[in-house]
Amino acid sequence: MNQTKPIQIQGKPLGGGALPIIITPLVGKTTPAILEEVAAIVPKRPDLLEWRIDFFGGIGDSLAVIETAQAIRRAAGGIPVLLTRRNATEGGEPIAIAEAAVVEMYAAACQARCVEMIDYELSNAPDDLRRLREVSVANGIGLIMSYHNFQMTPDAATLDSKFADAQRLGADVAKVAVMPKDVQDVLALLAATDRARQTIQLPLISMSMGGIGSLSRIMGWVYGSAATFAVGKSSSAPGQIAIEDLRATLATVRKAVTGQ
Amino acid sequence: MNQTKPIQIQGKPLGGGALPIIITPLVGKTTPAILEEVAAIVPKRPDLLEWRIDFFGGIGDSLAVIETAQAIRRAAGGIPVLLTRRNATEGGEPIAIAEAAVVEMYAAACQARCVEMIDYELSNAPDDLRRLREVSVANGIGLIMSYHNFQMTPDAATLDSKFADAQRLGADVAKVAVMPKDVQDVLALLAATDRARQTIQLPLISMSMGGIGSLSRIMGWVYGSAATFAVGKSSSAPGQIAIEDLRATLATVRKAVTGQ
Repeated sequence: MNQTKPIQIQGKPLGGGALPIIITPLVGKTTPAILEEVAAIVPKRPDLLEWRIDFFGGIGDSLAVIETAQAIRRAAGGIPVLLTRRNATEGGEPIAIAEAAVVEMYAAACQARCVEMIDYELSNAPDDLRRLREVSVANGIGLIMSYHNFQMTPDAATLDSKFADAQRLGADVAKVAVMPKDVQDVLALLAATDRARQTIQLPLISMSMGGIGSLSRIMGWVYGSAATFAVGKSSSAPGQIAIEDLRATLATVRKAVTGQ
Repeated sequence: MNQTKPIQIQGKPLGGGALPIIITPLVGKTTPAILEEVAAIVPKRPDLLEWRIDFFGGIGDSLAVIETAQAIRRAAGGIPVLLTRRNATEGGEPIAIAEAAVVEMYAAACQARCVEMIDYELSNAPDDLRRLREVSVANGIGLIMSYHNFQMTPDAATLDSKFADAQRLGADVAKVAVMPKDVQDVLALLAATDRARQTIQLPLISMSMGGIGSLSRIMGWVYGSAATFAVGKSSSAPGQIAIEDLRATLATVRKAVTGQ
């Protein structure tokens, strides 16, 4: 089997190299609500917490962002944090601030070193992608460049180009999440992921969303996806499975596939 | 999603229409060993027991076959029985009797109505396939026509033709089991199964074998396979998962895919 490359943070593989790592979203609107989520999720031991800051009321206040990130870290028991503003055009919540302010929020979080990774969409302006690549590298923060399509699964060439774009633009991880119209689209996403791990040097995260797409959340790691998103307390995208159920299912699949 | 057609026995869907049904093999060499397997497996409630008679020392003695089948039935607590001689050229055990005797053994079992279904390979002689179709229909016994390839996964046209052949030859169920050389072959088997359910009127059973093929044992039902084989006491093909683990995993997958 071709290797699925693990996601690394400062040179160390997340989750001790286990494949796939499990990421759970935090979607609270306020700091207390977020910390309540963290308290509920940490005992379930995900490998990474994704703070979806587009849900956070204080997104426009970088100090509030940093203080909340630091509070998450104190409560997270060593689980690293991924900071993600999901653009409303790619399935995120509408936010009240302009893109320039989003970039400055991300930059401030990198400079404060209050999170381990950030996620920024490939569809953003090249200058903004470059800026966040520079400030994240300078502060030892990992950068996921991502593509989401909640309407459809693009053709094979487009899927291939999204993984390739992330590498070309200097990402640490390439992420592709798409919506299937039928069961064949789920196979198309898995096949594209397998092609990408043979042509791209980066660790990959990929998934097909929605009900039938949930198959990819269980078996995507066999095709090259280093991570899968699960519900800790609340889901952030359609098709996510509760972390306890996903972990048990992954254990069965892993044993069947690898014999271990 | 296109419909996955359930396997029926005398007009009633097996397993109450649940998808997929779980089939567990019986691979004992002697009647006592087989009955020991049945006793261990029945509490695990598979939907169908597959008696792999190529493992049975008494395969050449039709009376011993019928008496053992009747003993299995008495011990099976209502779980129906599928009688299968897997040809050695398709992954079965070598047997000491000629094909004519195999056909007569199958015919005698049909006439005794001691099992609910039989499985016979598509690669057998047309006259033998026709004979077993006639005697099974006459006695209300279901007939699976099957294709196995333990070396490779044939190309898409060949996979399609195997499902179509089973329908053309009058089977009640079409079965295709193949070995993947890589993870893309698992997708090819799933894609072929999905095509078959759109073009073939029969219920289908399909799987990719071995470690990576075990993915198809978990998700094949989403692509059109009405049944999956699990280990009750001993496996009969590479990649089979323990019935308890498979059932728990299927429950998680079913909930994620269908929301139920």
